[in-house]
Amino acid sequence: MAVHLITGGAGFVAVNLTRQLLQRGESVLAIDNLSRGRREFLREFSNSNGFVFVEMDCADGSQFLPLIESFHSRQRISEVWHLAANSDIPAGVSNPRIDLKDTFLTTFETLLLMRDLEIPILHFASSSAVYGDLKDLAISETSGPAAPISNYGAMKLASEAQIRAAAECFLERANIFRFPNVVGTPATHGVILDLIRKARTTPSGFEVLGDGTQRKIYLHVDDLVEAMLCIRDQSKDRYSVFNIGPSDDGITVREIAESVRDEVAPHAKIRYGVGNKGWVGDVPTFRYAVEKVSSLGWTPRLGSKEAVRGAVKQIAAVELR
Amino acid sequence: MAVHLITGGAGFVAVNLTRQLLQRGESVLAIDNLSRGRREFLREFSNSNGFVFVEMDCADGSQFLPLIESFHSRQRISEVWHLAANSDIPAGVSNPRIDLKDTFLTTFETLLLMRDLEIPILHFASSSAVYGDLKDLAISETSGPAAPISNYGAMKLASEAQIRAAAECFLERANIFRFPNVVGTPATHGVILDLIRKARTTPSGFEVLGDGTQRKIYLHVDDLVEAMLCIRDQSKDRYSVFNIGPSDDGITVREIAESVRDEVAPHAKIRYGVGNKGWVGDVPTFRYAVEKVSSLGWTPRLGSKEAVRGAVKQIAAVELR
Repeated sequence: MAVHLITGGAGFVAVNLTRQLLQRGESVLAIDNLSRGRREFLREFSNSNGFVFVEMDCADGSQFLPLIESFHSRQRISEVWHLAANSDIPAGVSNPRIDLKDTFLTTFETLLLMRDLEIPILHFASSSAVYGDLKDLAISETSGPAAPISNYGAMKLASEAQIRAAAECFLERANIFRFPNVVGTPATHGVILDLIRKARTTPSGFEVLGDGTQRKIYLHVDDLVEAMLCIRDQSKDRYSVFNIGPSDDGITVREIAESVRDEVAPHAKIRYGVGNKGWVGDVPTFRYAVEKVSSLGWTPRLGSKEAVRGAVKQIAAVELR
Repeated sequence: MAVHLITGGAGFVAVNLTRQLLQRGESVLAIDNLSRGRREFLREFSNSNGFVFVEMDCADGSQFLPLIESFHSRQRISEVWHLAANSDIPAGVSNPRIDLKDTFLTTFETLLLMRDLEIPILHFASSSAVYGDLKDLAISETSGPAAPISNYGAMKLASEAQIRAAAECFLERANIFRFPNVVGTPATHGVILDLIRKARTTPSGFEVLGDGTQRKIYLHVDDLVEAMLCIRDQSKDRYSVFNIGPSDDGITVREIAESVRDEVAPHAKIRYGVGNKGWVGDVPTFRYAVEKVSSLGWTPRLGSKEAVRGAVKQIAAVELR
C-alpha cells in the first residue's frame, strides 16, 4: 500500500484526510510543528500501525530532509500531501513573516525534499484566495489573472508557481486543490469557532466583524476530503488545478452568527460592525465553478448553509467538553 | 526632485536606468550585493552628486532596513525600483535556493521596508517567464493562467503575487514590468555574451545550446528604460502590469549565432545541439502583445533583430578591451 507524507499533519484537514487514508489500509507519516495543529487531534490514530507522527518544522530544511530521508530509506514514500500553512489570515497581515515561513517556505522545502528523495506525486492545499477580488460571476480554474489581495493568498499563489515549475522539472504529478472556507471538526480557527467562543463568554450578546452582509461559500471537511481523494485517484495530468467547493452562492456572516446564536446562546443580541470586509485582504463575495472536479464524479453532500449548520453543531459540542 | 532607491543597482538594467534618472536631475541610492552586478559599471556616476552606492544584500532584512532607514531620515525616498534578482536562469535550476534568496526574498524584504518606511511607489522588474509556455498567438498582460515552467519564472510570479497583496494593503502605486530578453551593455550574462566569449576563445568554431531554431523576442536596454520611465511618468493605477517588448516575432538562436560569427569570428563553424529548449524551463517561442504600453505613447526604436545586432556590436567592443 502507498505511504503518504502529510505536512501540517496535526491540522484540521490533515486529521480528516488521515482517517480516510488509514481506513483504506494505507500508511501515513504526519509531520507538524504544532504551531496551529494539536497533538490531541491525533490521539484517535495512536493504535494504528500505519500511522507515525513526528513534531518538526518542515520550513527548516536542515531538519526536515535528513529525518524524512531516514524514514524513506525504510518505507518508501510515494506521495506528499502538503497541507502545512499559516491558516490564520489576519495574523499574516500583521506579520508577513508568518505567511513567508509557514506557507511559502514550507512549500519550497517540501519541493526540494521531493526532488532529492525522488518522491513523484504532490497534492497541495491551495486556496480560493489566490484569485483575489475577481468580478467574474463564477470563478473557474482558468479565471484570472489571479490577483491575490491578502498576503495569505499571495503566498498560496507563490507556492502554486513553484509547484508549476517543479512539475516541469521533476514531479510526475501535482494536484492543486483550491479550497474555499472549510468547516467541521477539529476546528482550530475561523469565524464559527470565534463566534461560538464569544457567544459562550457573553451569552447576552456578541459582536461580528463587518456588517454581516459578507457572503462566502463553505464546504464541509468530509466533502473536501472526499473530493481530494477522488482527484488523487483519478487525475493523471502532470499538473492540474481544481476548485473544490459547493456551487451555491454561499451564506452570509449574519446567517452564520444566527446559527451560532440559535445553537449556543438563544438570547444573545448580535452586534454588527461597519463595512463588508472583515479585515484587509478579505474577499467579500464569490461563487465557485466546480465543473472540473464534478466531471470526475464528485459532488458535495452539503451546500454552504448545511455545511455551516452542521459544523456549528459539531464545534459547539466539542467546545462544551 | 525625487529620490529613487534601486535594488540590484549595479546590474545591467539599473546602470542604464540610473543614467537616465541622473540626467533628469533626480537622485539615486543604488544598493547591490555585487553577486552579479559590478562596481566598475558605476564608475561613470562617481562624480555625480545625486548618486550614492552601498554594497549590501537586500535579502538580509536585518542589514537592509536600518541602513535604508538612516538614509531615508535624511533624504526621503519616494520610490523604489526593485531590480535585484537572480538573472541566471540555469543557475536557479541547479540550485533553487539562489532564486529563492535573490529573486523572491529580495522582494519580500523590499516590501517590508516600504511598509515600515512608508515609501509609496514601487516599480518591479518582472519577466515574460511568468507566463510559461502558453499557446496564445500573442501574450497579453491578461493571458493565462500564468504557469511558469522555470524556477526563475516561478519566483518572479511569486514576487508579483506579494506585490499585488501589498498594493491592497499599503502601497500607493505598483508598476509591474514584464521584461522580455533584454540586450545591450554592460552585459553580465546571456546568450550573446556567451557566444561572443566562445567565438573569441575558439575562432575556428563554437557550439550553440539547442538546434538553433528556438525563436525569442529581444529588446534593447535603451528602449526598455524609455518604456519604464514612460510608465513611471504616466501610469496612475494602484497596481498595473505591463508587457514591455517589440511586437515582432523575434529572432532565432541561429540568427544570433550568425550575427556573433560575422562580428567576431567570420571563419567560425557553428555547431548546433539537439532540441529546441536550451535548458529545462526554457520557453521556446512567444510573441508579446504590447498595446497597453503603446497606448501610453511608447514604441521601441529597435525590433528584435536590430536590438540583437546592435548589442552584438556593443558587447563585442566592450569585451575586446
